[in-house]
Amino acid sequence: MRIVVPAGGIGGARFLRGLKAALANGSPDTDEQITVNNITVIGNTGDDITLFGLRICPDLDTVMYTLGGGIDEERGWGRVDETFTVKEELAAYGMKPTWFGLGDRDTATHIVRAQMIAAGFPLSAVTEALCDRWQPGVRLLPMTDDQVETHVVVDDGQGRRAIHFQEWWIRHRAALPAEQIISVGADAAEPAPGVLAAIAEADAVILPPSNPVVSVGSILNVPGIREAMVAKTVVGVSPIIGGAPVRGMADACLTAIGVETGAGAVAEHLGSDLLDGWLVDEADAGTEVEGIEVRSRPLYMSDPASTEAIARAAVDLAVELAGRGPEGEATRG
Amino acid sequence: MRIVVPAGGIGGARFLRGLKAALANGSPDTDEQITVNNITVIGNTGDDITLFGLRICPDLDTVMYTLGGGIDEERGWGRVDETFTVKEELAAYGMKPTWFGLGDRDTATHIVRAQMIAAGFPLSAVTEALCDRWQPGVRLLPMTDDQVETHVVVDDGQGRRAIHFQEWWIRHRAALPAEQIISVGADAAEPAPGVLAAIAEADAVILPPSNPVVSVGSILNVPGIREAMVAKTVVGVSPIIGGAPVRGMADACLTAIGVETGAGAVAEHLGSDLLDGWLVDEADAGTEVEGIEVRSRPLYMSDPASTEAIARAAVDLAVELAGRGPEGEATRG
Repeated sequence: MRIVVPAGGIGGARFLRGLKAALANGSPDTDEQITVNNITVIGNTGDDITLFGLRICPDLDTVMYTLGGGIDEERGWGRVDETFTVKEELAAYGMKPTWFGLGDRDTATHIVRAQMIAAGFPLSAVTEALCDRWQPGVRLLPMTDDQVETHVVVDDGQGRRAIHFQEWWIRHRAALPAEQIISVGADAAEPAPGVLAAIAEADAVILPPSNPVVSVGSILNVPGIREAMVAKTVVGVSPIIGGAPVRGMADACLTAIGVETGAGAVAEHLGSDLLDGWLVDEADAGTEVEGIEVRSRPLYMSDPASTEAIARAAVDLAVELAGRGPEGEATRG
Repeated sequence: MRIVVPAGGIGGARFLRGLKAALANGSPDTDEQITVNNITVIGNTGDDITLFGLRICPDLDTVMYTLGGGIDEERGWGRVDETFTVKEELAAYGMKPTWFGLGDRDTATHIVRAQMIAAGFPLSAVTEALCDRWQPGVRLLPMTDDQVETHVVVDDGQGRRAIHFQEWWIRHRAALPAEQIISVGADAAEPAPGVLAAIAEADAVILPPSNPVVSVGSILNVPGIREAMVAKTVVGVSPIIGGAPVRGMADACLTAIGVETGAGAVAEHLGSDLLDGWLVDEADAGTEVEGIEVRSRPLYMSDPASTEAIARAAVDLAVELAGRGPEGEATRG
């Protein structure tokens, strides 16, 4: 079974760890033994930023570190046993910005990436080279090799202006009301090599509980990706439980684009042309969205076992829907 | 009193600390109160190297850290309380070279420098900006804003080739016989802004016990600098004691250019047109060089007090020689 997962940072990475486990352990309901080589992750690069001459790809790195065993489990981002000497020294020189959490171990990753990009390698090749070390057990592709940056239009009382998503997210903790969220460069971007082929060959696309606006949304903004997914069985895991984000500040993003922070509203926003199935938490049992099969089950990824069970439920729902959908066919008796 | 000091790394930096103390405490022999603002250091940039996209200036940094209180006293180079996480992580990615001692604190300095150079600032402006933090108490100028790199021609049995000085010095510990030492780019280089003016305005030029070939020698290779110094009272402190370098591997450099490793031979190599006075260690008492006033005294910089005394002796000799030289005049009774 081949699965494509468009993923953001922490939520996506943790879900992927559960999905790897679910596939590696086989799925009892599908009675199918599946290897970990069948997951292609399309990583969000809209959060990427260039700071101090380093090219930083927070979401790609979070996926890579999480699946490769290098993540700081408590923070959810960055390297375990991390130190922040370079960051402190840069601040001592008066270098700005000071709000970005640049770790020393992490800095080496960004130096390698910046060097390879300066040498002319596309981000997809750089990501593959970095994964050579981390062996994440999935194929990790950036959504695009082109530069797409998520900017947020804010009004801080001194007038409207667009700031980089990272500045809004980290420096302002998404507390500065956002009037608009823009994928700068998305219109002209092309999916990275392998992205469309992976979707075409996939048995299912599973949307992890990543931020639906700036993570999954950014990926879907790259021309061609959403269209390719529409032709597939797509099952999503709601990142909203009981009207609040499971983690992070997705509500601020949803508000900015005029979408209610609700499990059903997010599914509607993603669209019934795209989504075939939608898992919501038991707190949202009874949610109905026209054209989408909604199932409720516990959705808190509180430990590896619960995360694996959520991933397995998503896979099972995809298999079920593929078996009865108009474009699918029953694959087992 | 205004003094210009062409300086390399560790030896030069330690001597400068002694010189600052000597001038700040006044010189009993000259009965003159002197401030620390009167020292201009012309730093060697021939050792500079670009690694991992970072611009590294080992000698400028050693002077800056040593005089600014940031140096690792035991090693003599790099920052105190240094860690090497970035270096280890780069190696884990398979990045080469692995032989360069890139510290985490140091990395921030190189990032600031690389950023400023990429933004179009000349190295002299970058150095001034970095010194804003370190307040070394001297005016620190690079010998040139142009790129001059010391390369060493070696024959490792697989043929002759030129390697960067740092590779020869650090990776091969100068043990690979050097056939030639070349200041690549020196011919076309110009002294950095302020260098010639500082020499012109100086009461004396003092050569610290830096490597006479790759430190002081590189500086003298920049067209215009040696010529400007020849017109001045120049006193040097021998880096060779009893036929061996005080520190480092200057003997390998001297051998490469066909100069004997001896206090007298080095003075002859520097030239009696340039040198007016030369301090040698008591071990070399009796050394005579035609046209140069040679004095012997203890020259081991074993602690701050002995270093200060050596610096004071150099200043006193310069004052004495300026008072009787053809171009000087007696400045006190």
